[in-house]
Amino acid sequence: MKVKIGKTVRDMKAVWFENNIIKLIDQCALPKKLRIYEAKDYKNVIFAINEMVVRGAPAIGVTAAYALAQASLQKKDVKKVAALLQDTRPTANDLYYAIEYMLKNIERGEDPVASAEAYAQTIIEECRRIGSNGERLIKNGDKILTHCNAGALATVDYGTALAPIRFAFDKGKDIFVFVDETRPRLQGGKLTSWELLQEGIPHAVIADNAAGYFLWRKEIDIVITGADRVAANGDAANKIGTYEKAILAKENGIPFYITIPRSSFDIKMETGNAIPIEERDENEVLRFEGKRIAPLGASARNPAFDVTPAKYITGFITEEGILKPIEIRKLTK
Amino acid sequence: MKVKIGKTVRDMKAVWFENNIIKLIDQCALPKKLRIYEAKDYKNVIFAINEMVVRGAPAIGVTAAYALAQASLQKKDVKKVAALLQDTRPTANDLYYAIEYMLKNIERGEDPVASAEAYAQTIIEECRRIGSNGERLIKNGDKILTHCNAGALATVDYGTALAPIRFAFDKGKDIFVFVDETRPRLQGGKLTSWELLQEGIPHAVIADNAAGYFLWRKEIDIVITGADRVAANGDAANKIGTYEKAILAKENGIPFYITIPRSSFDIKMETGNAIPIEERDENEVLRFEGKRIAPLGASARNPAFDVTPAKYITGFITEEGILKPIEIRKLTK
Repeated sequence: MKVKIGKTVRDMKAVWFENNIIKLIDQCALPKKLRIYEAKDYKNVIFAINEMVVRGAPAIGVTAAYALAQASLQKKDVKKVAALLQDTRPTANDLYYAIEYMLKNIERGEDPVASAEAYAQTIIEECRRIGSNGERLIKNGDKILTHCNAGALATVDYGTALAPIRFAFDKGKDIFVFVDETRPRLQGGKLTSWELLQEGIPHAVIADNAAGYFLWRKEIDIVITGADRVAANGDAANKIGTYEKAILAKENGIPFYITIPRSSFDIKMETGNAIPIEERDENEVLRFEGKRIAPLGASARNPAFDVTPAKYITGFITEEGILKPIEIRKLTK
Repeated sequence: MKVKIGKTVRDMKAVWFENNIIKLIDQCALPKKLRIYEAKDYKNVIFAINEMVVRGAPAIGVTAAYALAQASLQKKDVKKVAALLQDTRPTANDLYYAIEYMLKNIERGEDPVASAEAYAQTIIEECRRIGSNGERLIKNGDKILTHCNAGALATVDYGTALAPIRFAFDKGKDIFVFVDETRPRLQGGKLTSWELLQEGIPHAVIADNAAGYFLWRKEIDIVITGADRVAANGDAANKIGTYEKAILAKENGIPFYITIPRSSFDIKMETGNAIPIEERDENEVLRFEGKRIAPLGASARNPAFDVTPAKYITGFITEEGILKPIEIRKLTK
């Protein structure tokens, strides 16, 4: 992804490995500061995942792969490190997959750094192809709504939902992006807006409440979001609020697409009803950057994800093409 | 409304007139501090409306009525003061109505303070009757979703959307309220939560993104909001995000009611499409209490209201009973 540093523009990744150190664009410091977090051992990595210095399932997976390569070079007990890493996000598929892949490669005696780099490259290539496939859905002049951050920060490079947007812009299409700020953690207002600014892609941040208004006014032509997990029937779990946007799009006759690598289809799961929804700390709602919003004594409910039923989803933009919800069941792993 | 002060509970209004001073519960200071703003002349009142020390169309109307009574006692040019007050919120029906009423009464030689008090009393009585009518829609055990603040703070006492909730709770019904925090200005998280806490009504604040999730899970039985203006066909303008909740309720088969005094029906307006939507300062979205959220250079769109088409509205709870959208056209002023 492009990152503006002073008057120059550099090409950066969200996560990379350099001189045996894992380097992460610190997502807690953005958008105020571009700070690089240096993970010198697996303890730093666990801290970075827990504190959301790195976030986004694919970026976390790649970070864990590098962490195992690093642990191997440092002659640490790789299996023990793997178990500790796995504990940071018990529900993320990518993390599990990255750890399994690395353990297998290390066991086979393959070069751990080369293995981790290959894993990162696979993720980047998937995103690049999602971008190229999704770009064709964006017409010149389109206004696009996106939710949360499914950008390069979340996926090492390109992003999933932001990949087609980057590709359309780079092709010279005249586009405009409405960015849901995405309470409670504001990943849209902070991170997606930051990524779009780096690329110079025209956009406006909106309160999550305003998405319906712009869909109603037909000021939005297409909705594109990411997803964390998709069941065999096409139900998709993603950041809280995705379900709302999908219904609003359907009601207004506007196509709603989910960008997702094929590895995130969980075809063993029949429907989205079985996807567990994590409720996070109520202080994410009650406070804002440490400052209390709600009156003392008030409490909050804070589900972090929701499930969008397949009937509201126009299609899935994957690295292998665009799938209708009904086509997912045909996939074999 | 009840207000807890230390260990005692006092009965207070959002606006009252005492010793020729207009007293307002300062809604900018809430929920952190219960501070009473004292308006000693019309200039203080204009400041209070502009800075949202007082907000909510009915509360602003009553404040303006008191301001004209005060101006009359102070031997000021009442018509000039009326024009200045009118300029503070050109779109609010209540403000216009309150000013017209007061000018007429003063012209007729009626006591200005008694006139203003009678006006305030009418508003309070309307809310009381909305509460009593709406209470019958709330069953024992119900969970209610509300948006923004249509409470006593906005209407002098009882509120509109909060009136049925107060009445149901006072009748001993076991209820629970989900409170949309209502970005960008957080009137739900700050003011509605504060009002419910004073009364001891169980509730949880939620991110606006989470309302759909709880509706989908059928954890909500009924949605009740206020409205600023309702057209002859039943389309209703209210705080941004109301449209989203109405569609989400409809899609999940959950009744969606709007509480509104009959005076807010604008039957000369055919449909909601003609209702002008104010876009407010983008900094309400880009900043939070003065602190920048979004990256420097980002911009925002900030529509303050949206229009909910009549087809999503189950009914209107008025002081004269519950109306279906189709029954509005029969009303004569």
